[in-house]
Amino acid sequence: MRAPARVGDPVHAIDTPALVVDADALERNIAALAAFARARGVALRPHAKTHKSARSAQLQIEAGAVGVCVQKVSEAQALAAAGVSQLYVSNEVVDPAKLDRLADLARGARLAVAVDSPVGVERLGRALARSGASMDVFVEVDVGHGRCGLPPGSAAALARHVSGDPHMRFAGLQAYHGRAQHLRSAGEREVAIRHAASIVRAAQAALSGAGIACPLVTGAGTGTFTHEAASGVWGELQCGSYVFMDRDYADNEPLPQAPRFEHALFVKSQVMSRGTSHAVIDAGHKSHALDSGPPSVWGAFAGLEFANGGDEHGILRAGAGHGLPALGDTVWLVPGHCDPTVNLHDMYVVVRGGLERGVVEELWPIEARGCLG
Amino acid sequence: MRAPARVGDPVHAIDTPALVVDADALERNIAALAAFARARGVALRPHAKTHKSARSAQLQIEAGAVGVCVQKVSEAQALAAAGVSQLYVSNEVVDPAKLDRLADLARGARLAVAVDSPVGVERLGRALARSGASMDVFVEVDVGHGRCGLPPGSAAALARHVSGDPHMRFAGLQAYHGRAQHLRSAGEREVAIRHAASIVRAAQAALSGAGIACPLVTGAGTGTFTHEAASGVWGELQCGSYVFMDRDYADNEPLPQAPRFEHALFVKSQVMSRGTSHAVIDAGHKSHALDSGPPSVWGAFAGLEFANGGDEHGILRAGAGHGLPALGDTVWLVPGHCDPTVNLHDMYVVVRGGLERGVVEELWPIEARGCLG
Repeated sequence: MRAPARVGDPVHAIDTPALVVDADALERNIAALAAFARARGVALRPHAKTHKSARSAQLQIEAGAVGVCVQKVSEAQALAAAGVSQLYVSNEVVDPAKLDRLADLARGARLAVAVDSPVGVERLGRALARSGASMDVFVEVDVGHGRCGLPPGSAAALARHVSGDPHMRFAGLQAYHGRAQHLRSAGEREVAIRHAASIVRAAQAALSGAGIACPLVTGAGTGTFTHEAASGVWGELQCGSYVFMDRDYADNEPLPQAPRFEHALFVKSQVMSRGTSHAVIDAGHKSHALDSGPPSVWGAFAGLEFANGGDEHGILRAGAGHGLPALGDTVWLVPGHCDPTVNLHDMYVVVRGGLERGVVEELWPIEARGCLG
Repeated sequence: MRAPARVGDPVHAIDTPALVVDADALERNIAALAAFARARGVALRPHAKTHKSARSAQLQIEAGAVGVCVQKVSEAQALAAAGVSQLYVSNEVVDPAKLDRLADLARGARLAVAVDSPVGVERLGRALARSGASMDVFVEVDVGHGRCGLPPGSAAALARHVSGDPHMRFAGLQAYHGRAQHLRSAGEREVAIRHAASIVRAAQAALSGAGIACPLVTGAGTGTFTHEAASGVWGELQCGSYVFMDRDYADNEPLPQAPRFEHALFVKSQVMSRGTSHAVIDAGHKSHALDSGPPSVWGAFAGLEFANGGDEHGILRAGAGHGLPALGDTVWLVPGHCDPTVNLHDMYVVVRGGLERGVVEELWPIEARGCLG
């Protein structure tokens, strides 16, 4: 795969479309959440499904994170191969072949995984018995997302099942409310997490009633983490998007008492066709994901609205007070949703000194791009 | 990148999520459009932006296609490196560094490109003069899409500009109406292409008035190609999606007199969590694109509705008369939009003998996946 830039290139020489990281903003975001977690006395295990990159994970761990989360066994494999040794697959894995891969990986890394079914625990147990490795296991409780996870009353039986396996350590509860992250009003998010906390407390009561200690509750995301941190329930935060801050998260009403994260991830594009009342840029939805809406325009042409022009094109139309870019002009986009946008690219072009006059400092491979299995 | 299957594996052994091609259906689709074009006396230059794969392009060329289209210089480079030697970048390229790459590539392959600006022609001319290669050049006319392309009256001046360059051959008009492809009613699509044809005729009249011969009009897609073929205006069809037929194209009211293309592209997924009234599969929008809506469920669980569960999950809820799959069950999806779905995967798992009892015949690399620049 051809790199869109070389180290030392000025920003204007970066080929388009390219995924560009503002290194200064990224480092400030990582430091800000690390400082927040330290001040609140909660651990941080950021979600690497956002950046899929060993270099980003290492920066988070250097700043104090206890490791990173991933969603897929193949992501764990890719990051472990690139040197990340503390990995939590915060998701269910029930396929025996995948569990064999995970159990093999656990021989050389500190691994954890989530479960929400007896079948999942049995199959994991067989894979671990075969490999001889051991693993931390979290029982997932559905705290309002309506996706994976058990009702709180079922947590104790599954935790006992986990504890009964000689290769598993019951590590606590996985309690993540994904849908709450994207509620626009700060009040709605607070209510959702208050409800999630009541479900976690019910699960903890069930564990306690069964004489099972709950070492940790882990969860939370960029849209709600101050509430989880303040709840007295969660001991660990899994925020992912804060490293990059996409357009969708920035559209949320600010979270009270949270650090203000900056946009650190951009798609550099350029105008490749120009009409009298519109400009066409060379970035379409093969360059940025649209699941959370379109990207916003950043920099010199901020204020222009991005219209989807298909797989390979974006369309900008002249708006009140906003002139159109000329043929060949650079147009910066802030992706609507960072995670699936990152997954479309093979590498980050990491710029130091800002998008205007900065220089390419490094190229970071996105090791876990396309790791689906 | 780890392959999700090995040649000879039965279908049930393919890891999930995986992009699976039904080889029998694919070959029937390719043969059907080739027969249609032969019968109508029009050439076929299928769009490889759909499949991004040299093997698929070669099958199309073996069936009679004169070459394939791509949208990006890097796609042309990837397919040329894999042995495809007749490539048309049916899109504007104005960046000098990209034009240098294109002009270098033209030394070893028969290449064509589209233009819609004097700046684009001048820069292409400089790149070709430097490389010493020559190229076919199509002038793009906007036939109703409202994206790239000139008004018909401006085509003659740009064609003269092209003809005046010693390294360029004016090859005709690029006339593609992308938006018309997805109009649901067959009648609306017919009206849109009738209008497009009138614009092309105006451009041809302008060329003729300026004494410039127009060798070819090229365009059309899977949703409208019978109209372009019947118009007497287009001499070449660029259909792409017909090879795979996604859910969105299948939702169109059928195109009169067109072959019935079959679904040939699937995402294989499996249930990884199971609630009392919903099942969670391991395929989310990092496995299939959502820009044209959700995938449909195919096979044993057809009739269940797919609900987006985020980047890594899909959710199926029990519906009237439709039972839910069990933990570990295979669930087949037909992507909403094939092109950006293909771009999420590194390879095709090509199955012979159907999705139920077939066997993995080949693994095809998706050479142009992620080729954005």
